[in-house]
Amino acid sequence: MATLSDIGLAAAINILSAFAFFLAFAILRIQPVNDRVYFPKWYIKGLRSSPSAKGAFVSKFVNLDFRSYARFLNWMPAALHMPELELIDHAGLDSVVYLRIYLLGLKIFVPIAFLAFTIMVPVNWTNNNLEHSGLTFSDIDKLSISNIPNGSQRYWTHLVMAYAFTFWTCYVLKQEYEIVAAMRLHFLASEQRRPDQFTVLVRNVPPDPDESVSELVEHFFLVNHPDHYLSHQVVYNANKLSGLVEEKKKIRNWLDYYQNKYERNPSKRPLLKTGFLGLWGESVDAVDFYTAKIERLSRDISTEREKITNNPKSIMSAAFVSFKTRWGAAVCAQTQQCRNPTIWLTEWAPEPRDVYWENLAIPFVSLTVRRLIVAVAFFFLTFFFMIPIAIVQSLANIDSIEKALPFLKPIIKVEFVESFIQGFLPGIALKIFLIFLPTILMIMSKFEGFISLSALERRSASRYYFFQFINVFLGSIITGTAFQQLNQFIHQSTDEIPKTIGASIPMKATFFITYIMVDGWAGVAAEILRLKPLIFYHLKNFFLVKTEKDREEAMDPGTIGFNTGEPRIQLYFLLGLVYAVVTPILLPFIIVFFGLAYVVFRHQIINVYNQEYESAAAFWPDVHLRIIVALTVSQLLLMGLLSTKEAASSTPLLITLPVLTIWFHRFCKKRYEPAFVRNPIQEAMMKDTLERAREPSLNLKGFLQNAYMHPVFKSADDEDIYVAMGEWEEEPSLISTKRTSKRSTAF
Amino acid sequence: MATLSDIGLAAAINILSAFAFFLAFAILRIQPVNDRVYFPKWYIKGLRSSPSAKGAFVSKFVNLDFRSYARFLNWMPAALHMPELELIDHAGLDSVVYLRIYLLGLKIFVPIAFLAFTIMVPVNWTNNNLEHSGLTFSDIDKLSISNIPNGSQRYWTHLVMAYAFTFWTCYVLKQEYEIVAAMRLHFLASEQRRPDQFTVLVRNVPPDPDESVSELVEHFFLVNHPDHYLSHQVVYNANKLSGLVEEKKKIRNWLDYYQNKYERNPSKRPLLKTGFLGLWGESVDAVDFYTAKIERLSRDISTEREKITNNPKSIMSAAFVSFKTRWGAAVCAQTQQCRNPTIWLTEWAPEPRDVYWENLAIPFVSLTVRRLIVAVAFFFLTFFFMIPIAIVQSLANIDSIEKALPFLKPIIKVEFVESFIQGFLPGIALKIFLIFLPTILMIMSKFEGFISLSALERRSASRYYFFQFINVFLGSIITGTAFQQLNQFIHQSTDEIPKTIGASIPMKATFFITYIMVDGWAGVAAEILRLKPLIFYHLKNFFLVKTEKDREEAMDPGTIGFNTGEPRIQLYFLLGLVYAVVTPILLPFIIVFFGLAYVVFRHQIINVYNQEYESAAAFWPDVHLRIIVALTVSQLLLMGLLSTKEAASSTPLLITLPVLTIWFHRFCKKRYEPAFVRNPIQEAMMKDTLERAREPSLNLKGFLQNAYMHPVFKSADDEDIYVAMGEWEEEPSLISTKRTSKRSTAF
Repeated sequence: MATLSDIGLAAAINILSAFAFFLAFAILRIQPVNDRVYFPKWYIKGLRSSPSAKGAFVSKFVNLDFRSYARFLNWMPAALHMPELELIDHAGLDSVVYLRIYLLGLKIFVPIAFLAFTIMVPVNWTNNNLEHSGLTFSDIDKLSISNIPNGSQRYWTHLVMAYAFTFWTCYVLKQEYEIVAAMRLHFLASEQRRPDQFTVLVRNVPPDPDESVSELVEHFFLVNHPDHYLSHQVVYNANKLSGLVEEKKKIRNWLDYYQNKYERNPSKRPLLKTGFLGLWGESVDAVDFYTAKIERLSRDISTEREKITNNPKSIMSAAFVSFKTRWGAAVCAQTQQCRNPTIWLTEWAPEPRDVYWENLAIPFVSLTVRRLIVAVAFFFLTFFFMIPIAIVQSLANIDSIEKALPFLKPIIKVEFVESFIQGFLPGIALKIFLIFLPTILMIMSKFEGFISLSALERRSASRYYFFQFINVFLGSIITGTAFQQLNQFIHQSTDEIPKTIGASIPMKATFFITYIMVDGWAGVAAEILRLKPLIFYHLKNFFLVKTEKDREEAMDPGTIGFNTGEPRIQLYFLLGLVYAVVTPILLPFIIVFFGLAYVVFRHQIINVYNQEYESAAAFWPDVHLRIIVALTVSQLLLMGLLSTKEAASSTPLLITLPVLTIWFHRFCKKRYEPAFVRNPIQEAMMKDTLERAREPSLNLKGFLQNAYMHPVFKSADDEDIYVAMGEWEEEPSLISTKRTSKRSTAF
Repeated sequence: MATLSDIGLAAAINILSAFAFFLAFAILRIQPVNDRVYFPKWYIKGLRSSPSAKGAFVSKFVNLDFRSYARFLNWMPAALHMPELELIDHAGLDSVVYLRIYLLGLKIFVPIAFLAFTIMVPVNWTNNNLEHSGLTFSDIDKLSISNIPNGSQRYWTHLVMAYAFTFWTCYVLKQEYEIVAAMRLHFLASEQRRPDQFTVLVRNVPPDPDESVSELVEHFFLVNHPDHYLSHQVVYNANKLSGLVEEKKKIRNWLDYYQNKYERNPSKRPLLKTGFLGLWGESVDAVDFYTAKIERLSRDISTEREKITNNPKSIMSAAFVSFKTRWGAAVCAQTQQCRNPTIWLTEWAPEPRDVYWENLAIPFVSLTVRRLIVAVAFFFLTFFFMIPIAIVQSLANIDSIEKALPFLKPIIKVEFVESFIQGFLPGIALKIFLIFLPTILMIMSKFEGFISLSALERRSASRYYFFQFINVFLGSIITGTAFQQLNQFIHQSTDEIPKTIGASIPMKATFFITYIMVDGWAGVAAEILRLKPLIFYHLKNFFLVKTEKDREEAMDPGTIGFNTGEPRIQLYFLLGLVYAVVTPILLPFIIVFFGLAYVVFRHQIINVYNQEYESAAAFWPDVHLRIIVALTVSQLLLMGLLSTKEAASSTPLLITLPVLTIWFHRFCKKRYEPAFVRNPIQEAMMKDTLERAREPSLNLKGFLQNAYMHPVFKSADDEDIYVAMGEWEEEPSLISTKRTSKRSTAF
């Protein structure tokens, strides 16, 4: 076990590297040439433009004002400066509530740490169990629960503390849920008029031999919501078209590249080999080649576009239906339309940029089968992911490389290369897998059929958390692959499992302290440097950028990345709650992480990230649930640990804790979750009434006209697409269907 | 273990006793004097009246037509005769769907038994594992899986059979769910106009210092559902009043009794002692005494009634809100009204006779706390119910009785009495507990705050099933109290539990066969005799009945009793599915039970039971879920059994079965359950449109006026109550609130 000085050394190294990152960031960010890397959010908002060319040429790229280097940490107070309301305006509610997760960490752990250090640490310290045990131990262990002899009455302190921590955590969680729910409702209520307030997404429109999807939707809603239906927009299957547009964009990049090259060196036309990867084949003029290619693609695109608009088969069985009032939309989204609950499924439309278009047309049965497949696949991914990696690792050793590629023999026999391969290659397979894990999880979620980006990210985050819980948390404590754990747990009795894990928790404290410093301190500090976007921006800037618009596109502001970021925070909640009673020395490290990360991400949200969508903090129930899970896990593990300490009389008192916690969760779920999934009628009616009073002659139809058009039609540079797709339904004056004789009344 | 001849003997005894019950029934039912006991349903429907007095006096009471005794089983074909549609008309959908549970049992088990006997029994029989094992065994065991040696390839048969049985069960379940859902929707659609179609129950109306509940409700719905709100009816807290009315009814019974006595013997006024239990105290004239008492109660009732109508505190924070259209009610019931999801809770109103009035005013927080308390209480009831019973048993032995009541010593020392106490008293404590169990569970459900009788019965049924599963099924297999099992399971590894249970399953087959015959054959046959109602009817008839109306009230038709009946059927599903692969000889016994019970209960439903409410088969999702649970349990236990048989290679194949079963359940839940909990907009609109075309000038308000009045106001014999309570809201022409300026428009 590590001693205090070991930890001190590790802390020093990590603090230093964090400082190095901050210093590098401080220097790089004030160089005008990096301005678009470190302040893209302001460019996107149009509040900042490229540095003007006044002054020397050099000062366009390098900051020569040396005074500004002295204040190299002044971004920190600046990041904290912007008030929350302004931040909501600036970056949206999602980002602000995301930051509140860090604040929540501080709110939970600062008082807990205070209590632990004033009460529990002295109780632990004033024992000498470890000194008599004959085991090697460090000063850190003297502060932990391990220092108390078995069967001691002092365990009552820990029991009382466990109760105190649980109540405090639940109290803070409840407060926070209440605040976030109120923020969300206030945000939704004070918002501008938005198309998704009036719009409902209808899926699984049943096929009809006599009517087109569009007619069918219109008739259905005119019949069943006669006073509220306004219009609808069918969904086109434009996946192929968006592929073509994507390709055209890529080719245009190459064209730009060669044109730039040609302009810089007009004496020589750039050449290109048409074969594989440009390595062989016939040489052609690159500019002409790509110009021709773009022309061909443009033709293909317009053919495809025509095909989509004219072919009824390219209309998917889904539609965005708009209503005259928010009330009508709220009613339609929350009710079941048809006696068959698998057709005419209605739900709130996500906001237009949040829609994941590819999944809109998946039928019901396919959805349930997909869910089963993904569940099974995820189970295997979590518990058996080591198997393919182990195979790759066994292949990536010296002998098998020698066999497969004998001509490499002289190289790999060099001692340095050999040790590199043996030391590095096996690890790299695992590392690559872990880098691709979020992508794999995202693909799973997409396959599962969610229809909005926010839902995709939320689901991926849940899976990522579970993976981390099994493979990082339990994996580090029990040290074995997930499958070995699973096997062990199956063969172990139910009350043995928390004992096994609980008993090994105190021993792993130093490992997790190091983990927190590397991942939580240095990792967060590295985040602010944005090394990858920095390099990519400069590469693009050099090769592709011709106009200001190109430079705009070369920026990569990125997003918070809820699907990876949130599970990462949750790991710290888990560690903090589990170790709060066992080894409280861990808490300050976690508090530093939460504080540092709060400042860094607040800075990033203000200056860098550009959210793709706004879900109005729809993720909070997930955040809440995971903290509750962490709390319950910590209680069960404490129970296991204490029962190995012969403090068994505490068991009945400890078992009530998870029961109360789960009950608390159910209470919160009923009390607050509806604010995140349903839309209250009263609110809708209030906004409708206000709006009617303020703007009696509002042209809502015009407002909603093109709101839910596939982005490929919007982003296309050919203007005629708008015309082709603008087949917005006319005001339906009379419905030619036998099903009803009701007429839609003008609003 | 029992041999075939033992089983044969038990079967003979049980078949004989079943026949005895049928014979007694056949004789009793054709006696005119019992007519109201065996055909109350027809009396209630007004299709049958007391036998006319023509012919001899004796024939009014005794059937002298001896030919009718010869056809003593002819009720059976008669019971099967009524077609299903007519039966729905006659007894309601609940009863018909309840009968379908028995049919479902036949549909599942007849083909399974056929397959098992043609394929599996020969495979089992043609082994001689048991002969070589040196164990005692019977012919029954030779037919079971025990006869196959460990590690044999023949276990593949059982594996394939497990798959076949699972697929068949799931297929039948899916078909049945589809049929029942269609029946429910058809029933709801073809129904007469009913108040609950237009009405929504609002609970947790927030308190308002300025407005009464009634005003508040009116304003809220006029603002938020301006085009649809029609009227509302507040709920009075009439629990005390109904207590008084109840008491008055009881006193009137006594008055009738003494009046009858006096009429039969006019020479002597009946006397009564006013002291404890009428055993001592002053003697008074009984008729005068009770007349005075009734008068006093009548006064109390009218005072209380006045208090309720005038005191705003007796108005509960709940109301029945009626809408102009079914569409409006469907919308309001399915949407969230207020941004705070714990107030203004709306849900479909149960039909008036289904309402459980006492629970209408429980606030939200209290509800969640009650749920926790009941969950904990039920846990202790299930696992620790043996403790108080053991205490009672230990008290109820000879020595402690001798100590407590020494004067009884001479009596209990008599050998016969002594053996009776020792042999019978301990058992009687358990028996009494089991008799009261459904009542205890019902009290729990009531405490939990459900607002309709049907929901109360459904929840009690779930709890009863769980109790049975733990204490009857697992308790018989593992033979130990539930708490001992729990203790054992906690200390056992997860994969050991199915092994322990699985391995002891084949040995318990004969026990369960006997259980089925006693409880399922003889028990069902006893049901038709209705011994308790028969005795009570004749007692009442003799002492109380004066008028035809009294005789009407003396009938006790009873109900199906979903809360006890359904869990009892489910136990047979569980036994059948668990033993289908293990000991198929059990299946014919179960099939006989299902067949017999179907006929008996069909007869009872046609002739006897009178359902208190109609929930339109809302219980079917529960029935489906429990069969799925039984299926999953059977698969897990088979897995445990086979793994002890060294047929371990089957485990991966067997583990996919529960995964698929649970997935199937989730599919069904999504596909069919909405039909049982939500009301499709389309249906509501269709009925509204039809109605508007048929009856354009319908006075809906008049129709709904007194629909949701507390039954105590309706049943009271004083007619003036109607007037006092008829404070139905006038058409609200103008709303005096600042919150909106909208006027309600006439429909």
